[in-house]
Amino acid sequence: MAMVCLSDFEAYAKKYLPKIAWDFFAAGADDCSTRDENIQAYKRICFRPRILRDVSMMDIRTKLLGTEISFPVGIAPTGFHQLAWPDGEKSTARAAKAMNTCYIASTYSTCTLEEISAAAPGGLRWFQLYIHRNRAVSQQLVQQAEALGFQGLVLTADLPYTGKRRDDVRNGFRLPPHMKLKNLEGAYEVCKMSTSFHSLLDPSVTWNDIYWLQSLTHLPIIIKGILTKEDAELAVRHGVQGIIVSNHGGRQLDGGPATIDALVEVVDAVQGRVEVYLDGGIRKGSDVLKALALGAKCVFIGRPALWGLAYKGEEGLQDVLRILQDEFRLSMALAGCASVSEIGRHLVQFSKL
Amino acid sequence: MAMVCLSDFEAYAKKYLPKIAWDFFAAGADDCSTRDENIQAYKRICFRPRILRDVSMMDIRTKLLGTEISFPVGIAPTGFHQLAWPDGEKSTARAAKAMNTCYIASTYSTCTLEEISAAAPGGLRWFQLYIHRNRAVSQQLVQQAEALGFQGLVLTADLPYTGKRRDDVRNGFRLPPHMKLKNLEGAYEVCKMSTSFHSLLDPSVTWNDIYWLQSLTHLPIIIKGILTKEDAELAVRHGVQGIIVSNHGGRQLDGGPATIDALVEVVDAVQGRVEVYLDGGIRKGSDVLKALALGAKCVFIGRPALWGLAYKGEEGLQDVLRILQDEFRLSMALAGCASVSEIGRHLVQFSKL
Amino acid sequence: MAMVCLSDFEAYAKKYLPKIAWDFFAAGADDCSTRDENIQAYKRICFRPRILRDVSMMDIRTKLLGTEISFPVGIAPTGFHQLAWPDGEKSTARAAKAMNTCYIASTYSTCTLEEISAAAPGGLRWFQLYIHRNRAVSQQLVQQAEALGFQGLVLTADLPYTGKRRDDVRNGFRLPPHMKLKNLEGAYEVCKMSTSFHSLLDPSVTWNDIYWLQSLTHLPIIIKGILTKEDAELAVRHGVQGIIVSNHGGRQLDGGPATIDALVEVVDAVQGRVEVYLDGGIRKGSDVLKALALGAKCVFIGRPALWGLAYKGEEGLQDVLRILQDEFRLSMALAGCASVSEIGRHLVQFSKL
Amino acid sequence: MAMVCLSDFEAYAKKYLPKIAWDFFAAGADDCSTRDENIQAYKRICFRPRILRDVSMMDIRTKLLGTEISFPVGIAPTGFHQLAWPDGEKSTARAAKAMNTCYIASTYSTCTLEEISAAAPGGLRWFQLYIHRNRAVSQQLVQQAEALGFQGLVLTADLPYTGKRRDDVRNGFRLPPHMKLKNLEGAYEVCKMSTSFHSLLDPSVTWNDIYWLQSLTHLPIIIKGILTKEDAELAVRHGVQGIIVSNHGGRQLDGGPATIDALVEVVDAVQGRVEVYLDGGIRKGSDVLKALALGAKCVFIGRPALWGLAYKGEEGLQDVLRILQDEFRLSMALAGCASVSEIGRHLVQFSKL
Repeated sequence: MAMVCLSDFEAYAKKYLPKIAWDFFAAGADDCSTRDENIQAYKRICFRPRILRDVSMMDIRTKLLGTEISFPVGIAPTGFHQLAWPDGEKSTARAAKAMNTCYIASTYSTCTLEEISAAAPGGLRWFQLYIHRNRAVSQQLVQQAEALGFQGLVLTADLPYTGKRRDDVRNGFRLPPHMKLKNLEGAYEVCKMSTSFHSLLDPSVTWNDIYWLQSLTHLPIIIKGILTKEDAELAVRHGVQGIIVSNHGGRQLDGGPATIDALVEVVDAVQGRVEVYLDGGIRKGSDVLKALALGAKCVFIGRPALWGLAYKGEEGLQDVLRILQDEFRLSMALAGCASVSEIGRHLVQFSKL
Repeated sequence: MAMVCLSDFEAYAKKYLPKIAWDFFAAGADDCSTRDENIQAYKRICFRPRILRDVSMMDIRTKLLGTEISFPVGIAPTGFHQLAWPDGEKSTARAAKAMNTCYIASTYSTCTLEEISAAAPGGLRWFQLYIHRNRAVSQQLVQQAEALGFQGLVLTADLPYTGKRRDDVRNGFRLPPHMKLKNLEGAYEVCKMSTSFHSLLDPSVTWNDIYWLQSLTHLPIIIKGILTKEDAELAVRHGVQGIIVSNHGGRQLDGGPATIDALVEVVDAVQGRVEVYLDGGIRKGSDVLKALALGAKCVFIGRPALWGLAYKGEEGLQDVLRILQDEFRLSMALAGCASVSEIGRHLVQFSKL
Repeated sequence: MAMVCLSDFEAYAKKYLPKIAWDFFAAGADDCSTRDENIQAYKRICFRPRILRDVSMMDIRTKLLGTEISFPVGIAPTGFHQLAWPDGEKSTARAAKAMNTCYIASTYSTCTLEEISAAAPGGLRWFQLYIHRNRAVSQQLVQQAEALGFQGLVLTADLPYTGKRRDDVRNGFRLPPHMKLKNLEGAYEVCKMSTSFHSLLDPSVTWNDIYWLQSLTHLPIIIKGILTKEDAELAVRHGVQGIIVSNHGGRQLDGGPATIDALVEVVDAVQGRVEVYLDGGIRKGSDVLKALALGAKCVFIGRPALWGLAYKGEEGLQDVLRILQDEFRLSMALAGCASVSEIGRHLVQFSKL
Repeated sequence: MAMVCLSDFEAYAKKYLPKIAWDFFAAGADDCSTRDENIQAYKRICFRPRILRDVSMMDIRTKLLGTEISFPVGIAPTGFHQLAWPDGEKSTARAAKAMNTCYIASTYSTCTLEEISAAAPGGLRWFQLYIHRNRAVSQQLVQQAEALGFQGLVLTADLPYTGKRRDDVRNGFRLPPHMKLKNLEGAYEVCKMSTSFHSLLDPSVTWNDIYWLQSLTHLPIIIKGILTKEDAELAVRHGVQGIIVSNHGGRQLDGGPATIDALVEVVDAVQGRVEVYLDGGIRKGSDVLKALALGAKCVFIGRPALWGLAYKGEEGLQDVLRILQDEFRLSMALAGCASVSEIGRHLVQFSKL
């Protein structure tokens, strides 16, 4: 079977992954409305393509907080990559580096941060963090990440408790015995149940904890999970360097907005003071173009990266990224943009939003 | 099979209830448009979730006319619980008390009010009333309910005649011979045909009969079946204590609004002068949150309670309530609210309504 | 099988009618968009039901140009009733009279006007007319109808040419040899091909021909096929007594509006100067209520009447009418109206239109 | 099987064409959203039909840049007609001439321009052009077309690169060995791969190249692929004679507007300074009427022409054109227009757009 577009990888993963792993990756909260809306919302956005513009030289590079990446698609943090491919996050790190883009490594990795760093030295990586009830755990992880050369800290802010993903409950999802949450092993005896490892997180976290984080590290802080202008304003005021508009892939509060629908509100609130990114629902290069047209500096892919891993590990994830890259470049050209700087709101039909 | 969410109970009830009972409980009027809209309408409401708010201590209690309940979900009045479970309304009363919430017992119960009271002494219960052509029947029921410690009187106002539920007509629905409308037995020889027992009700009832009801009892009166601001205003002017925005589960006039769509109009008309509740279409904790965000003080569940009974009687209904409670608490936390008092319209995207 | 609602009759007719007859009755033009919209449009209209109004005495009578009928549903003109039932239009006439409502007999009847008159003496009937290229044919029919006691003349104005009904073309639809267009037999040698008998009609007819019609008869003229305010205004100015908002059951121009959607525009243009009726898409009593709420004085049913005939001739059509009558009365009561005069726009949610 | 409407031809072609040819003709870019929207968008446009207008003499002729055609439907440029019928573009030319309408011959024809001209001498033809990296190729084609009597030059402006049509990639689409891109044979060794023959096109083309084209020829220039008012304005300013509102049949940028939705914006921008045409999604005569009502001077059909060829070559394409012609004439009459000049925006419900 030719792997032509991302849904080919999805079909492959659904067919070949163990059901419990597929279900875990695919899961959305409750009725999965928000998960599905993340995708449907793109279909309601209509381009205004321009013609007869010189698109012979295409420049699709962008910068994340000053660091250049090959195109505006990075890897969103997702857990348990060994469920998709034996080498787990090491493969992810290698693919991201090979494609010269950013990989946000999850706290819930099945490889250690050291292993991830060693797998792809010099790659651009950010570290995704939860704040644990035991702050020492978080502090240690932050400082380890900084020491290992991670260049950003992504604080996931939409998981005071874990969303209700019905299939995981039905399946009694837990990691197989031979996989470990390696980043948390040294810190404390970690429970393997998905329902309980999250209970180590602190639901009392507030905006003030941003100051605490800032006191631990010189890394820029990117806050993930913002969907409203009010929280975007608070994020800016608390001195973060970036915002990821995210609903956690529809895995937390079901009934919230698609991220692409929430993006404009956040971008308008922020007014360029910090960079705004987005994850959720990216399946085609033209989705990336829509997100950038509406103000995202970069997008991140979650499930598609896992499908790529499930297909052929590092190589499969590179395939996924390369397809998105080719599709994005082509969409830009067909919309009349030769460089990322030419992308703007004029490319979308606002009355249709 | 794990019972993870309310639709699991629905599937169970559909599979194990006698068809005639399932059909009776499931029935909507005519094409069932309004019944189905009650559910669909929730999907069109979009949250604006807030992050980084301390949700470590969750308080989901509320009060119904001053009496505290454990969370803002009660049991709506529905008839014939013995069709779902042998112990009928006695099980319902026990489950409601165990979960510390309000049970609105229907006139069309298959247990007497005494049996219901005795089954769960001290539980918070309201009594649902129709006004009969023979006013003495209604008067006796009201006074009996008050004497037995029922704390509210819910007048159903949207059933001057019974809606046309096609399946009931096709099935020739009637109660099995061993079940009785026990509350009406003493009062007069009651016909067992669904088409005829309703004909004992008085279609000439008007707002003036509220005064008559008030003359019979000291109980607060809650009027059920209001869908417009005009009737909400009339209800307040006639001195009721509460309003249930209801379309009788879509079993009366087909083509009327979903209750969640009618709620805002009623809440805006009432302006806090009386409490406003809602029933119809609640299937998830996030539906409860949406209703409260739009101004409901509490919601009531009808069919889901029957599914719980059909599954395991008192225990099954407790399961249903506990699931809703857990989901509601989680939705609140994920939306950034630590107590019911923090819920408000800011939680929903108004431009999407 | 119990015949509970109109779709039961539809299912029966689809099952038992010869395919060519079913196809002819069911046909819409082109993609059948307008035919289907006639029905879908009702589902988008939302009631605002009122409660606690005395609906013990229901009065559902209305008047058509001064003549009382038992409820605001008449029989729209449709052709070839013998395709549905051997007695053809004689059964239709008897059923309409039995139910005390108006029957608009079609020019394309398979019984003569005399037979129709004789079948149900004294029934309220209008005669539906096309203007033929040979004006003498039309003149003769008008004068015959008037002589036979028909009380109104319905000019079909939306058929300069026949719409393209694909199934009729595929089936090579024509009347079986033993059926005749009896009203046209005396007038001239009539071709039996559906594609050709319409070619006897005059596509050059204009508003001026209304004056010619008025010169032939004292009967009130009702014009059928109006969908715009401009044509409604012209109809009033040309002295007609009534307007039927109609798209010919979706059999003429595909892509035009549902009749219930066009109704408000026409009613607002007419401002009570003439009576406004509607046909198309009526399947339930609540549809009738919606049409009246939006300003129709009466509605007419086409296909459902044929399904009734197909089921049991006169008796089947009475069943259909009685079901609509019962449903309409019940819908009125549940919406809070005790008489037709209480029906108005306040019953529908205008912001949802 | 009777060929009654265009979808009959579509079904035939799907059944009898080799899969690889069907897939190539049917292909849309990416998810085919825009391809499908081209059709769906017509369904959302609602007519306002007028009645009682003399439509006995129908005049459906129009003019393309001054040249009369029998009705406002021409043949859009599509490639590789030999994939549909052995005689290829020669059949297309004959059918177009027989029906007295305009045929836009594609650069990617499997017959030479000489063969096309010789097949139907005197027919109205335009030539569709891409601008090649090797400008001499384009220049030679333009001059050859002019010399052969083509009367217009259609510059396709929305294909700097080829859109991603998944099925073509999966099928490894290429022309069978016995077919050639005959117009390009003489010019240079042409690669037969669809992915590579497009790479001969110049993605650096800008509006200035219009001036270069104008320097080569006296033929009027029509620009194809405009979807915005900005580009419409630029087209007018650069002195083109016509605009084809087109999204390349949904084969280029997926996510752009349906052409019928983009039409009004372009027509309003142009304000009559040049003629505006449209292609994409035309499947019925009433679609043509909608496009003309919204301001198109003429429409062009792509895939339906290929289905006609696949059915019976020249004869099949004539059938397709004749059906559209009959349907268009009938729709006009049923909407109350006797000549093309009477068609206007008043025919469509603007509030529904």
